[in-house]
Amino acid sequence: MNELEIKVPATPATCYKIKIGTNTLGSIWPELDSDFPKLNKFIITDENLVSAGHLEKLIRERNVPAFVISPAGEISKNINTVISIIEAMEKAYLGRDTLVVALGGGTVGDMAGFAAAVFKRGVPVVQIPTTTVAQADSSVGGKTGVDSSISKNAFGAFWFPERVYIDVATLTTLDERQYRAGLVETIKHAIIADSEYFDFMEENLDSILDRNTDVLEKIAYQNCKIKGNVVEEDPLEKNKRRILNYGHTVGHAVESASGFKLLHGEAVSIGIIAAGMIEQRLGISEPDKFQRIRNILEKLQVPVISPDNLDENVLLDLIKRDKKAVNKWPKFVLTEKIGNVYTKNGQYAVEVEPEIVESVLIELKKS
Amino acid sequence: MNELEIKVPATPATCYKIKIGTNTLGSIWPELDSDFPKLNKFIITDENLVSAGHLEKLIRERNVPAFVISPAGEISKNINTVISIIEAMEKAYLGRDTLVVALGGGTVGDMAGFAAAVFKRGVPVVQIPTTTVAQADSSVGGKTGVDSSISKNAFGAFWFPERVYIDVATLTTLDERQYRAGLVETIKHAIIADSEYFDFMEENLDSILDRNTDVLEKIAYQNCKIKGNVVEEDPLEKNKRRILNYGHTVGHAVESASGFKLLHGEAVSIGIIAAGMIEQRLGISEPDKFQRIRNILEKLQVPVISPDNLDENVLLDLIKRDKKAVNKWPKFVLTEKIGNVYTKNGQYAVEVEPEIVESVLIELKKS
Repeated sequence: MNELEIKVPATPATCYKIKIGTNTLGSIWPELDSDFPKLNKFIITDENLVSAGHLEKLIRERNVPAFVISPAGEISKNINTVISIIEAMEKAYLGRDTLVVALGGGTVGDMAGFAAAVFKRGVPVVQIPTTTVAQADSSVGGKTGVDSSISKNAFGAFWFPERVYIDVATLTTLDERQYRAGLVETIKHAIIADSEYFDFMEENLDSILDRNTDVLEKIAYQNCKIKGNVVEEDPLEKNKRRILNYGHTVGHAVESASGFKLLHGEAVSIGIIAAGMIEQRLGISEPDKFQRIRNILEKLQVPVISPDNLDENVLLDLIKRDKKAVNKWPKFVLTEKIGNVYTKNGQYAVEVEPEIVESVLIELKKS
Repeated sequence: MNELEIKVPATPATCYKIKIGTNTLGSIWPELDSDFPKLNKFIITDENLVSAGHLEKLIRERNVPAFVISPAGEISKNINTVISIIEAMEKAYLGRDTLVVALGGGTVGDMAGFAAAVFKRGVPVVQIPTTTVAQADSSVGGKTGVDSSISKNAFGAFWFPERVYIDVATLTTLDERQYRAGLVETIKHAIIADSEYFDFMEENLDSILDRNTDVLEKIAYQNCKIKGNVVEEDPLEKNKRRILNYGHTVGHAVESASGFKLLHGEAVSIGIIAAGMIEQRLGISEPDKFQRIRNILEKLQVPVISPDNLDENVLLDLIKRDKKAVNKWPKFVLTEKIGNVYTKNGQYAVEVEPEIVESVLIELKKS
């Protein structure tokens, strides 16, 4: 037996910029052309962005190859759409000297990021998130992924953007339901990392719901700061980054089980309530925390109970398939008080017995 | 406009071991269980490995979930097979604590490596290459990929193995055509990096064709050493690693255009001849080099001319779609003498005018 060792060299630290403003869409393209002059651009967006006029604002009269996802939304966030995107890029004779520009919400960003990660072994991507959920969450941090016919984000990669542009004016064209659901990730950030930010959200909820762009810029900044800090500390989700998963273990299951009739943020709202119920049962929660969280979610008018037709056994099966599951059962992120995640032996995701989760799933339907 | 900067931390250097021996298949599994005790194993292989008895030798009476690719070969190396693999992994309730074990030739390794790279954003993979081409080339270096309906390796990722096990005894069951075609990558290694190795190949070709395992172990070691050195220096193919692409630009086009009737190594043989013709036209080649290379390829009984039915315009179109193309035309790797790649301004891949390539494609049919 003969042995050889092959070294895989270290990769140096890098960084990417997030630029936040109002009505900035029109100035992005000249900047991309000047900062990435040698790269051919390819846009990935969806039909909603086209009808809202955002694609036109971005590219004006320029002739840029684009893939417009249709229908928009979670229903298209699957590997088959990625295949169509890759083939469109091939038909445009694009090579590795391509910059993918993702204009849209979380599903566009996830799909475009994953397509960029796997196209000819990887090309760079710029994210231009246009929804509350994408601006708060999915555009930052490099997680990309699409669904298989069995579960969410079964296919995925860590693929960090070259840059992120946030134009909060794009939020003003969002429909009310999507707008509100997307704010759940903002609430989540406050719960896991920043109690003052939670206070701010409680105090300014009316201005936020009025889509005041000054307040929206502040939120965008604070969201990116919280998420960015976590991602910097633990980019590949070995431990700390798990906290961003608060409310998502039950949330993803509820989202799948609803056949994606629930929006991601709506499902996460239910997942946050489920996490709160688990915290109460384990006795790790501050007294008034659960009610404050429930109140703000109710003011947002997002669901806080699970729909009657969701069977807890279906949910349990989906939870077993969670991509973070080890030995067919995932760990859970829980909080002690607003701004503080509960840890055990230094771990941010902790064991919760299936029986407790099952009883919470039953209670969720009744509460 | 407000700006934030998100750091993406450096990743440390790592390394992986290549273990080379004869009749070692049976001892791999206990070693994996002992070295990776916490990981669930999932095997990806193909029907040829099952019928050759290699899968049985590897796992014995153990009950390990597996995906058996059928039919074997390039025809299955596409994104649809990867979808089936991922769904099989989901049905086995596998999570991120999974070790993918790839047992097979280059197509198995490429598919399994890519599936591992994208399953739930990436799980580790161990490669057990069982063909001349996989042992010489594809199992080492971390390139993974599968084809779209339009071109080769349109989907892919850099995903380094945790470990590589080479059992040269697996080569003794290979059919003669596949065995010989796979040796073309070995010839390529000698041409681009080591003239003494080329001498060794010329002198020992009979023992190699007799599948003498002592000589095969030597070849496996030398191939991994050459490839490993190049990959260590330039893992992400910024420059030096391009030399491994010798003969592949025309080779990939010929392989695609033949509808994969030509094996990869057979197509690369034609591509190496094409590179030699380009070198002659550019006047950068040592006098007897072309004939020595042609002689050894002819002794291997691999094709050195392109089939009559391949249209040069089809080939040119495929070359334009090469994944390394910039502005719709790829650069070429050329050699000055055996063991030495030609460089221009420090670059290992150089410009060649389309007219020269076109005339070589025409000559290739006639020669």
